[in-house]
Amino acid sequence: MGNIATLQSLIAGRWHGLEALTPLHSALDNELIFHTHAEKIDFDEALVYARKTGVKGMMALDFQKRAQCLKALALYMMERKEELYEISHLTGATRADSWVDVEGGIGTLFAYASMGGRELPSSNVLHEGPAIALGKRGGFAGTHILVPRGGVAVHINAFNFPIWGMLEKFAPSFLAAMPCIVKPATATSYLTHATVKMMMESSLLPEGALQLVIGSTGDLLDRMGGFDAVTFTGSADTAAKLRANPNLIRNSVPFTAEADSLNCAILAPDVTPDDPEFDLFVKEVAREMTGKAGQKCTAIRRVIVPEQHVDAVGERLRERLARITVGNPKMEGVRMGALASMDQHRDVSERVEMLARGNEFLFSARDGFNPVGENCANGAFFSPTLILCRNAMVNDAVHDVEAFGPVSTLMTYRDIDEGLALAARGKGSLVSTLVTKDPAIAAYAVPMAAASHGRVHILDRESAVDSTGHGSPLPQLKHGGPGRAGGGEELGGIRAVKHFLQRAAVQGSPTMLAAVTGEYVRGGAVKESDLHPFRRHFEELEVGHSLLTHRRTVSEADIVNFGGVSGDYFYMHFDDIAAKDTQFGKRIAHGYFVLSAAAGLFVSPAPGPVLANYGLDNLRFVAPVAIGDTIRARLTCKRKVDRNRTDEQGRGQGVVAWDVQVTNQHDELVASYDILTLVQKRVINT
Amino acid sequence: MGNIATLQSLIAGRWHGLEALTPLHSALDNELIFHTHAEKIDFDEALVYARKTGVKGMMALDFQKRAQCLKALALYMMERKEELYEISHLTGATRADSWVDVEGGIGTLFAYASMGGRELPSSNVLHEGPAIALGKRGGFAGTHILVPRGGVAVHINAFNFPIWGMLEKFAPSFLAAMPCIVKPATATSYLTHATVKMMMESSLLPEGALQLVIGSTGDLLDRMGGFDAVTFTGSADTAAKLRANPNLIRNSVPFTAEADSLNCAILAPDVTPDDPEFDLFVKEVAREMTGKAGQKCTAIRRVIVPEQHVDAVGERLRERLARITVGNPKMEGVRMGALASMDQHRDVSERVEMLARGNEFLFSARDGFNPVGENCANGAFFSPTLILCRNAMVNDAVHDVEAFGPVSTLMTYRDIDEGLALAARGKGSLVSTLVTKDPAIAAYAVPMAAASHGRVHILDRESAVDSTGHGSPLPQLKHGGPGRAGGGEELGGIRAVKHFLQRAAVQGSPTMLAAVTGEYVRGGAVKESDLHPFRRHFEELEVGHSLLTHRRTVSEADIVNFGGVSGDYFYMHFDDIAAKDTQFGKRIAHGYFVLSAAAGLFVSPAPGPVLANYGLDNLRFVAPVAIGDTIRARLTCKRKVDRNRTDEQGRGQGVVAWDVQVTNQHDELVASYDILTLVQKRVINT
Repeated sequence: MGNIATLQSLIAGRWHGLEALTPLHSALDNELIFHTHAEKIDFDEALVYARKTGVKGMMALDFQKRAQCLKALALYMMERKEELYEISHLTGATRADSWVDVEGGIGTLFAYASMGGRELPSSNVLHEGPAIALGKRGGFAGTHILVPRGGVAVHINAFNFPIWGMLEKFAPSFLAAMPCIVKPATATSYLTHATVKMMMESSLLPEGALQLVIGSTGDLLDRMGGFDAVTFTGSADTAAKLRANPNLIRNSVPFTAEADSLNCAILAPDVTPDDPEFDLFVKEVAREMTGKAGQKCTAIRRVIVPEQHVDAVGERLRERLARITVGNPKMEGVRMGALASMDQHRDVSERVEMLARGNEFLFSARDGFNPVGENCANGAFFSPTLILCRNAMVNDAVHDVEAFGPVSTLMTYRDIDEGLALAARGKGSLVSTLVTKDPAIAAYAVPMAAASHGRVHILDRESAVDSTGHGSPLPQLKHGGPGRAGGGEELGGIRAVKHFLQRAAVQGSPTMLAAVTGEYVRGGAVKESDLHPFRRHFEELEVGHSLLTHRRTVSEADIVNFGGVSGDYFYMHFDDIAAKDTQFGKRIAHGYFVLSAAAGLFVSPAPGPVLANYGLDNLRFVAPVAIGDTIRARLTCKRKVDRNRTDEQGRGQGVVAWDVQVTNQHDELVASYDILTLVQKRVINT
Repeated sequence: MGNIATLQSLIAGRWHGLEALTPLHSALDNELIFHTHAEKIDFDEALVYARKTGVKGMMALDFQKRAQCLKALALYMMERKEELYEISHLTGATRADSWVDVEGGIGTLFAYASMGGRELPSSNVLHEGPAIALGKRGGFAGTHILVPRGGVAVHINAFNFPIWGMLEKFAPSFLAAMPCIVKPATATSYLTHATVKMMMESSLLPEGALQLVIGSTGDLLDRMGGFDAVTFTGSADTAAKLRANPNLIRNSVPFTAEADSLNCAILAPDVTPDDPEFDLFVKEVAREMTGKAGQKCTAIRRVIVPEQHVDAVGERLRERLARITVGNPKMEGVRMGALASMDQHRDVSERVEMLARGNEFLFSARDGFNPVGENCANGAFFSPTLILCRNAMVNDAVHDVEAFGPVSTLMTYRDIDEGLALAARGKGSLVSTLVTKDPAIAAYAVPMAAASHGRVHILDRESAVDSTGHGSPLPQLKHGGPGRAGGGEELGGIRAVKHFLQRAAVQGSPTMLAAVTGEYVRGGAVKESDLHPFRRHFEELEVGHSLLTHRRTVSEADIVNFGGVSGDYFYMHFDDIAAKDTQFGKRIAHGYFVLSAAAGLFVSPAPGPVLANYGLDNLRFVAPVAIGDTIRARLTCKRKVDRNRTDEQGRGQGVVAWDVQVTNQHDELVASYDILTLVQKRVINT
């Protein structure tokens, strides 16, 4: 035991634990490789450290800076990724399996860095607008903000993805300024341990942002409060146990569970054995059964096919499964590795027996299972196993018992409604794949499947060229399903960041709401200034800086000229007879003329800090502009986002959104919109 | 007992229960007024009825039609509102208190009818886009949809708002097509009973949409599944008890709690006794202490003021409280009624004792409490009670013990950070009011308060003219706070509807995603047609109908003419010297010219079914258009919403959004946007 390293916890900035406790074994040959540590962790210290030091360090940054921090971390880890692949191998994973964990995990950091940079402000207040007027006199309005909770996130992970599992939770909670305490499943905690060590060695994270628990969580959950959060990935049983923790319940601590479920793939009735979709279906099922040796929360456990095609599907699946070489993933040609431990092996074996009762084996160890590689007999290798159930509508086990290995049940339906009913028998799953070539079937079946699935993957010859597959949660899309799958939501873009923030409604005068949100709110005080706001550099521009332009009387000649230059001779502008029958009763100016004339009113023609008007949002033509009407515009700096970016010449620049209100001679609003610009900084970014 | 009515439950479409069980008493004189029924309810029948008949009836409508149904219901109930006021009086409520319950409740129906009509589709699939490309070859994209869950919502309510409490939960869950089983608090269930009776008499709801439980929920929660949902308003203790239900936990049944909390009002350090804000603060506190006799989840329990102003605040509050006449709300001049029951009276008395320990009374029954009206001595009247705590940083009770009556504690702070720390000692509250006249203080304090509060209300002389007050949740704004307040979110506009829907990520080819979402997705199949899509009536127009226009070469003359008509002489378009230094290296056309010319390319000039282009969204100028470039546009029907509306002539019309892509001679995208139009129907709406 002297040469076997003891894994240490990282608590309050110090690595902790020397004495060996629980032995951890290689999945490949059951050799002892690590120990957990025996010393107890002072969870009070960990929580105080996170809530004080951690929160302070995170809040010293803003959303944009935390996004940049994630990007730098991802780049650093990509440089050192091979170290992680080397260790990942001990979990029984092939290179392809490890890719999902290692590069999928680092890719999630990249994705959140990028989405955060695109969608979050350069402050710690996320405005979820627009503000809504709540009174008749303009004095009172309401909106929503999301702010960091000031608490700590505890992330409890499963053994199957020791890196991705941590990082997909860490990335959004880090953006939300929540310090994390991560607790990996003990069996493969050595890989999470190596990853956390690497992250700390990067020196890129603020102090207190990350702590690691090796071994038991002890009384950690009993010490959490209402401003903290807990996330969990693992079995439904453990999820239920943790969720019932009286302290979590008493303090309404948000608890997000993502549990394995009995995911399915449905072959739609329109697909025949001659269609390419038929083979796509078989290939996807075989891939999801055997990828990561079937140890994926998203793996296809139930294969739902029209009864007339069950034999063809079974035959082709048998062929594919027979061709998959199982063994030590370092060996040439090996396509499937081992389960994570001998404990898992026992568990899967037991469950296969439960599933098989009253059903037939279509493929199992009896079909000549013989893993390749040294000492494989001691490893946690398990044969791909396919069971056929011919009466799935009346069999409960195939919808309720999950064997967390390369195990699936093939079942039949008579019509698509029965197929969908079988899918729903899973009582809530993470993902379903529907293979069809008919958009009408997708339009009917997907919303029904969506009621019981967190994700629905539609596969056909068109999507197959790019599909990331049934089993892959993506950072942009929600991961998590209802019911048995835990009822949680993870990932899904910036939604995941919002889950770690606290949303509050804010009510007050427009001026106060602008001060709180950092965004100009209509009706609030503006800052008139002699200097045209377009002539201010990013740093000198303040939210609320405003310009009320000179006026312009719209003439018939304007309409005529605008028609000429645009080619838009719509009757409302040019046909005096037809225009009389409209709601306006006369010709009116083009909406796009009003927009263009407003630009003419507020533009500052000479070169200046405003580099480009790259977009426009929320344009509404509120009232018509008729011949003889006189318009003017109010242009107000609405929002500034400093992405700490530079242009090609190395000059800093920021994004500025402007509120534009075009009014007529009665001070009535005629057009309303936001324009988006890039504005130069005065100083060079460092 | 023969003359006392027995309240009946409404289960599976039948009124149920004859035998008397629990007596219910008037709050005003403790007279017996109703009984609950003794017969047990078959909750299995109730659930099966909701999941079968109820879901079927709701899904036969779509979001738009359910919104119309809510509006019709609200109109019906407004006609009969006086019947509800009459009964409400028995709960001890004044007319003003009842207004919040009766018209606040009906107003919530109106608000959800209106928000639903504005923001939801005329189908049962809510697309939460935009779709995101997930591959390099355009074959695979992802997006999110929200669909009805197919389950039932159980709404468990508190005794204080028997009507509003039910309707604010019913309205969003009804829009989400979830049949409801409502369970009011027994003490005032007679008012909910009358309301449900009225709703059924309207015959406006689909069969199975609503059931009512009078008395105990029995084993109802033990029978719920993962596609159902439970909401609860009431005490934190009951919330914790219900949330720990093993069946709810095992099936991950969504559980939303909204618990009373120790809400606060903070007087900011900038406000002096001479400011109007000082009096606004005092008035708001007095109003929230005594409104509904202090029986509001949102009532101000903690009054947090700078220590130098505590005497002035105390004095002015005493004056105000002394002027409030308590008694039978039917009597002239009565401003505060009774607690809901003698049980409540005992409970509040006990808690006031706990709060008073070590503190002083500034106002209490000893200041001459004498409720007016007949038999008041038997009623549940309670004196407004103000306690002064001079050491709130070291006193736990004032932050933890809630007396659910007209009871508040005044406490002091030395600086705003201490004031905010006191606010957070509530461990999570529904709402906080900040009275300040300084936007900088609001900008600092509100995000900090927001971390522990569901809503922050900023009061100053500007907002006071329109403010709906500290205590009023509004349909547009989130209601619910973290921690002690239950951690739930209700209301907040369409967010509340989404809470009752199931969100699923959908992946597939753009063509498949378009079929599922009902919205055109870029890259998906389009339907080219000889007939210009602008010439199709709403019914004949299909999502995907598309027009690829003729081309137009952009000349220097176009830029010159466009400058002339718009007045926009920005150097990028007109200054050959300065334009050379830009990223484009030469003059380019105005973005608004490209937009206007695109309209010229796709407009159909003669009168037709497209009535107006009333708006434009998501415009991005993706690439520059230079002199000599040739542009064209693709216009594709993206989304149709049938609001079942008619124009002034009685002709039906719908909203149609169009996807516009402007490309150049290299088929590169130069501008991208959506335009919004109103399109006539061929037939008259019925």
